[in-house]
Amino acid sequence: MDLTEKTLSSEKIFDGKILHIRRDTALLPNGQEAVREVVDHPGGVCVVALDDENRVLLVRQFRYPYMQLLREIPAGKLEYGEDPREAAIRELREETGATAGKFQSLGELYPSPGYCGEIIRMYLARELHFGETDLDEDEFLTLERVPFDQLVQEVMDGSIKDAKTMAAVLKTKVLLNL
Amino acid sequence: MDLTEKTLSSEKIFDGKILHIRRDTALLPNGQEAVREVVDHPGGVCVVALDDENRVLLVRQFRYPYMQLLREIPAGKLEYGEDPREAAIRELREETGATAGKFQSLGELYPSPGYCGEIIRMYLARELHFGETDLDEDEFLTLERVPFDQLVQEVMDGSIKDAKTMAAVLKTKVLLNL
Repeated sequence: MDLTEKTLSSEKIFDGKILHIRRDTALLPNGQEAVREVVDHPGGVCVVALDDENRVLLVRQFRYPYMQLLREIPAGKLEYGEDPREAAIRELREETGATAGKFQSLGELYPSPGYCGEIIRMYLARELHFGETDLDEDEFLTLERVPFDQLVQEVMDGSIKDAKTMAAVLKTKVLLNL
Repeated sequence: MDLTEKTLSSEKIFDGKILHIRRDTALLPNGQEAVREVVDHPGGVCVVALDDENRVLLVRQFRYPYMQLLREIPAGKLEYGEDPREAAIRELREETGATAGKFQSLGELYPSPGYCGEIIRMYLARELHFGETDLDEDEFLTLERVPFDQLVQEVMDGSIKDAKTMAAVLKTKVLLNL
């Protein structure tokens, strides 16, 4: 069975600072038409930064859509056209002051495939050296270093809810057999 | 440091079939104001359904925002007010025909905390029995059963990109020591 849908028309709904929304009409496999509402997003990056004592850098920040403080691995949005690896190195340095001797890919993550085209590239950083942070003017966060085992426990018991943090930390666990 | 932001005003931007967008003005910790664009979402559920031979039920479907076929665990949106556990049991039965003797929580997942308030509740279903599927009229998908070890491998090598599938499968691996 061919499951492919085809775009028949596309209408711009909202062009915001972060969110870009369109409403398309799609042709379904059965020949009928359906509305597809889509969030366009430049994509993002995130980094599991593991120090020499197997502690992970976490960022604690207020997440407005939940009106909650969340603990997440360092992350950020891509500028349109920016190289993801360079962006990840930049975000890690800006948010935590860390630079890494070893920097490797942990693959891609699609956060909400039903309505958003965002791709988050995940990385693992090791051999860390620490300098100054360089936060955006409207970026407010606090840092902590959490032992890897404890972080896995917090993912397992539900304390860590952020999708990219859960996925990247558990991938790291399997990859490094930690 | 108090990182809390407060809502000063809220403006409805788009009230679609699936997406509901608002643009708020928030008071930042430093006393300045910032725009916060938010996707409101009723929340969702997903299920790692493990059969008696340790195979996982996967759904293959076209995901319009990526214009790609993705392989994911069974999932669906909550109706407003619907009990998440009941919704997960319903979605599993509708999409795969399976009912489970054992059904347990794998916790909550926040897919895109920067701009969306969606909460996905994850479940693990075992002791499966199979009946008829009951798909929505505009739902097109194919099913497969993938051995658990192979699925973990596909998460690790990047073939599986869906956030909830990655997180729920790796949580299951750690939980059951598979």
